[in-house]
Amino acid sequence: MVLFLIGLGLGSPEDITLRGLKALKKCQHIFLEAYTSRLPQELQALEKEWDLPENSIQEAWREDVEQHCEEKILEPAKDENVALMVVGDPFGATTHTDIVVRAREMGIKVEVIHNVTIMSAVACCGLQLYRFGQTVSIPFFEDNWKPTSFYEKTAENFKIGLQTLCLLDIKTREQTVENLMRGNDIFEPPRFMTVNQAIDQFLEAEKELGLGVIDEKNTLCVGLARVGQVDEQIAYGTFEAVRKVDFGRELHSFIVIAGEDSMDEIEKEFLEHYRVGEKVEQVKEENDEGEE
Amino acid sequence: MVLFLIGLGLGSPEDITLRGLKALKKCQHIFLEAYTSRLPQELQALEKEWDLPENSIQEAWREDVEQHCEEKILEPAKDENVALMVVGDPFGATTHTDIVVRAREMGIKVEVIHNVTIMSAVACCGLQLYRFGQTVSIPFFEDNWKPTSFYEKTAENFKIGLQTLCLLDIKTREQTVENLMRGNDIFEPPRFMTVNQAIDQFLEAEKELGLGVIDEKNTLCVGLARVGQVDEQIAYGTFEAVRKVDFGRELHSFIVIAGEDSMDEIEKEFLEHYRVGEKVEQVKEENDEGEE
Repeated sequence: MVLFLIGLGLGSPEDITLRGLKALKKCQHIFLEAYTSRLPQELQALEKEWDLPENSIQEAWREDVEQHCEEKILEPAKDENVALMVVGDPFGATTHTDIVVRAREMGIKVEVIHNVTIMSAVACCGLQLYRFGQTVSIPFFEDNWKPTSFYEKTAENFKIGLQTLCLLDIKTREQTVENLMRGNDIFEPPRFMTVNQAIDQFLEAEKELGLGVIDEKNTLCVGLARVGQVDEQIAYGTFEAVRKVDFGRELHSFIVIAGEDSMDEIEKEFLEHYRVGEKVEQVKEENDEGEE
Repeated sequence: MVLFLIGLGLGSPEDITLRGLKALKKCQHIFLEAYTSRLPQELQALEKEWDLPENSIQEAWREDVEQHCEEKILEPAKDENVALMVVGDPFGATTHTDIVVRAREMGIKVEVIHNVTIMSAVACCGLQLYRFGQTVSIPFFEDNWKPTSFYEKTAENFKIGLQTLCLLDIKTREQTVENLMRGNDIFEPPRFMTVNQAIDQFLEAEKELGLGVIDEKNTLCVGLARVGQVDEQIAYGTFEAVRKVDFGRELHSFIVIAGEDSMDEIEKEFLEHYRVGEKVEQVKEENDEGEE
């Protein structure tokens, strides 16, 4: 039978495609991948919205998809249709290519149903996708673990005038070292990195590396939250200005802009709509004076 | 009322999202943008699939969206709901940000309904999206017009080990200079650049620029056709090997790989599934010998 990898898009139940919904109805086993991203809805709400039987959707955690994928997902797909649903596009996150390789080795047919990922949807702020360089991931800094490669890659993009999309860390099912060692199945509350934390980590990395590429007062950036949802929020300005914005609940994304020259007039005009902080007030005052 | 910008995804009627379909049903005017990409279906087939009244969809050509957008699309959106449908994501192509700016100036509410674009769906070949650099567009070479900036940008990506997605030119409604000058409304048959043509133009640009970055016999690439459709086709190998593949009808896309070192083991294993040309035969022969 078929293993369907179904993209769910940006996070609301109605972001699924007709093709994806049709495939779901054919499946005897339905898994929702729950660790690289997160839907704000409960499983019951999804089942209701998609007209699926109660309790037909199971959450799949990292260990289900990475370690136990053979017995949990692939073996059943030999005789029945199995769906693995993924927020965004099935190939947006790096772990889902591995499952395709494994399925092929077992002779299981795989069908991919694409959907929008944040990696292209960020263009909603007005910046053109083709002027983005490599995407970086920002991991939560820990006391003894502060990897700064996200800053170095951003600097590489910056040098050739390309914007950088930063994917912000999420921790959906962390255990304390104590609980892990004692084998307690107790998980910490989920954590989602905010735009504000991402900015702090960039500034901390700059202090560490001293590359002088990003500067709190001058470097421009865009903070985005809940892209594509009714309460989508976008803020544009300097690191300093955007850092003060309250973006509300998850999921957040962040773009570093490689200077004024990296944008054309339409991009600037579009972004101005989302401007926060000092510069906006300045512009406003000038306009007010002009009108007097 | 509302101007809905609705992404249609990769090209089949069932690639629309539930959210997009819901919005369509609320609209008094429905336009299908017909010049940055192309659906293989007739308008009637779309109306049938989406259960819309006959003749409710109108094609919007470049001049409708760029020059006459005010009277054709924006004015009606003041009093009624208007949909502008776009293959891929509404912000995938650069012309649709402009219409949002204009709508905002006129006080019209805009709602964007995202969908998958080829710019992220290309990850279906197994290459990770976050290792792509800037995307380039390859225009059809004309006798007296052979811009090579796509090669130079690819070289920039190459230097920092990033893959390059190449978007291939399409001409949906070209006029000959003669017809244009005489004011004849006669249009040439649509043209879609093939992977093979893209490779030829890369090789021609290399001859012109002499950068020595791309080499027919060694540089690796991926050709893709009809991504996300039932007859999707993917081929991986050297420029020389992929150049010989017949990819069939539109739409085609092309990826230049920045060398073996730019890929990890999973990416290589995944791509091997799509390998064409000499190396595959070599591997096959070796296996056959081993089995004897």
